[in-house]
Amino acid sequence: MQLRLSQAILKPDFQGEFTASILAAAASPDIISFAGGLPNPVSFPIPEMEAATKKVLEQNGVTALQYSSTAGWPALRRWIAKRYETMGVYGVEADDIIVTNGSQQALAMFGMAMIDPGDPVLVEDPTYLVALQSFHMFNPNVIPVTMNADGIDCEKLAAAVKAHPDAKFIYVIPNFQNPTGLSYSQQVHDKVVEILKGTDILLLEDNPYRELRFAGTATDSFGADLGEQCCMLGTFSKIVTPGMRIGWICVRNQELRAKLMSYKATADLHTNIFSQMVLAQYLEDNDVDAHIEKTRQLYKQKAEWMMDCMRRYLPAGVSFTPTEGGMFLWATLPEGLTAVDLYRRGLERGVAICPGDPFYETERNVRTFRINYSNSSDEIIEKGIRILGEVCADMIK
Amino acid sequence: MQLRLSQAILKPDFQGEFTASILAAAASPDIISFAGGLPNPVSFPIPEMEAATKKVLEQNGVTALQYSSTAGWPALRRWIAKRYETMGVYGVEADDIIVTNGSQQALAMFGMAMIDPGDPVLVEDPTYLVALQSFHMFNPNVIPVTMNADGIDCEKLAAAVKAHPDAKFIYVIPNFQNPTGLSYSQQVHDKVVEILKGTDILLLEDNPYRELRFAGTATDSFGADLGEQCCMLGTFSKIVTPGMRIGWICVRNQELRAKLMSYKATADLHTNIFSQMVLAQYLEDNDVDAHIEKTRQLYKQKAEWMMDCMRRYLPAGVSFTPTEGGMFLWATLPEGLTAVDLYRRGLERGVAICPGDPFYETERNVRTFRINYSNSSDEIIEKGIRILGEVCADMIK
Repeated sequence: MQLRLSQAILKPDFQGEFTASILAAAASPDIISFAGGLPNPVSFPIPEMEAATKKVLEQNGVTALQYSSTAGWPALRRWIAKRYETMGVYGVEADDIIVTNGSQQALAMFGMAMIDPGDPVLVEDPTYLVALQSFHMFNPNVIPVTMNADGIDCEKLAAAVKAHPDAKFIYVIPNFQNPTGLSYSQQVHDKVVEILKGTDILLLEDNPYRELRFAGTATDSFGADLGEQCCMLGTFSKIVTPGMRIGWICVRNQELRAKLMSYKATADLHTNIFSQMVLAQYLEDNDVDAHIEKTRQLYKQKAEWMMDCMRRYLPAGVSFTPTEGGMFLWATLPEGLTAVDLYRRGLERGVAICPGDPFYETERNVRTFRINYSNSSDEIIEKGIRILGEVCADMIK
Repeated sequence: MQLRLSQAILKPDFQGEFTASILAAAASPDIISFAGGLPNPVSFPIPEMEAATKKVLEQNGVTALQYSSTAGWPALRRWIAKRYETMGVYGVEADDIIVTNGSQQALAMFGMAMIDPGDPVLVEDPTYLVALQSFHMFNPNVIPVTMNADGIDCEKLAAAVKAHPDAKFIYVIPNFQNPTGLSYSQQVHDKVVEILKGTDILLLEDNPYRELRFAGTATDSFGADLGEQCCMLGTFSKIVTPGMRIGWICVRNQELRAKLMSYKATADLHTNIFSQMVLAQYLEDNDVDAHIEKTRQLYKQKAEWMMDCMRRYLPAGVSFTPTEGGMFLWATLPEGLTAVDLYRRGLERGVAICPGDPFYETERNVRTFRINYSNSSDEIIEKGIRILGEVCADMIK
């Protein structure tokens, strides 16, 4: 039988193929991997989940195992809605929340609901590679806008908005962006609001790492300033558990909400209700802020230790941007070197990093690379960075 | 702000809007609803799930709460692969299985991987309405092929295959089809194999109800005859729990498997691993066949009771097809009447049925309707069918 696939699935997927090959190589137990982005498992509340599950099944087992509604479990949606007050957004209601299979599912949902082939969409450059992959499925004209150390480049953003007034949305990660670990300053935040207000460009705010800030002050969510013009994505993956695949969309425009819901209803009916109820019970019975604070302290120590090691072991000319939270550091090689070369040579020495290439829409053979600190022991961090330092020194020679 | 949605999401969705309005009306607690398709909750293994969860979290909690692989939990995939032996398909391996968010997600995955706009795809007529919705997202040319009492109409199928040799796939539900409750006879099964063999048309077999047979003999899966040309969808929704949203694809063509996996990786990374592991533990520690047998006996009694009531209360001229399993009965009004009218009048009297309309690609104002027997008490079944009989009699007058 001759297989007859769609043109859509046969399109090259640079992001997907690149990262699949990197993660496969980094998966060997002999490799020190800073390439992925796993939460540290010591942060998982295992006994608390067991207690929550017992309670849910004993008190409400039929509901937890039966079909459920597309929007998601009301108690969980109420918790999420209330949480927005910590981000400066008041008046969010449970009905503004749609529970998704991780916030990753939300990316394809917005792609489906908003992108016609050729439509401009604006993204930070670099940006989260799975956002690029998800949007690519709908054949947009992706317009990358440079990320600076304090957020998106506002001059370039203003120019992009002027050149593409028909852009469907702009996708931003204002806190500890993946891959750069950078956050928006208040000044950049305010300028972005000024540029977008009055346009019909939706701001899609992804915020998986905001709760993992261990220094400095976070800006409020763009939803506080932009109202319905801002849709906010969130996830429990970085603060409680990624394995349950529970994220959400906060969408306050009723027409858009209805369309996203009808797509979700067709795509997979609803998100796992058993896990939604267990998670809601966990949140009701435990102090999640205390839990997040423990994770935050753990990651602070790991980030500081990794930055110490980088200052100690990386040769002059290799720079990195200090971070105040999240899970990643972002480093840059001297001119003339490529991160892909560092990746290859590092792997030969048993250390994997993630080259910057798949995070860019168009740039290739870049000098930037991402390293993860959340999921390694201190010994491994020191050993890995020492080896990377030697590899960099060899490359500079 | 002026919302700028995609053409794809603005397309009319007859199936979605029709059923949303019906299910909303039927959701009132005062309504006797035969409109939906919920498993009976007495069939849910609640204490067994609690024991399985405890074991998973205590023995393997970190894995259950961490990110996981796109294909799904190996132990669960091994169980599924082995299960195909009961359907006459030998040699299926765990690596042929991709775990999905309910088998519903698989429909969109095949749409994405195979359909270019305008491509012919063949479906039974009527067929599962969510399959129509999922395929519609990719703008195919849907070719409906009449369902007879013993399966798809083979003469019409042969003609459709001849007229559309470039059809990407044919979607079939060989056991207790939704909505008709009909199954393929061995003769029709063999003839379908004969028609498709040697073509490049993939057969997509959906089989959610096969295990719920309480009389007669099931045909083997089409995968036994067609090999790689047949992809098989399955689900735990009807035999263990729908709330966990765990279904699967059995795909033995390696190229197609890789493409489906890359799409799933972008769409939502992986299916909830916590629930996959709990389910796998449940299957390891319990006799699921004994559990299914209990459900089967329950549904047998309900189906027989509903058929008794229909024979007793429905006026002459209203016919129905007796079933040997599954969850639905399929009935037909006399000429000149419509099922939508029956639905409206029934609702006024407090009884909801599901008119056949959304299950057809093109036919509207049909005389057929679907009624569910799995989820009502005997008293409610008798009361509801008695009222429906009165409504039908009024309509015939």
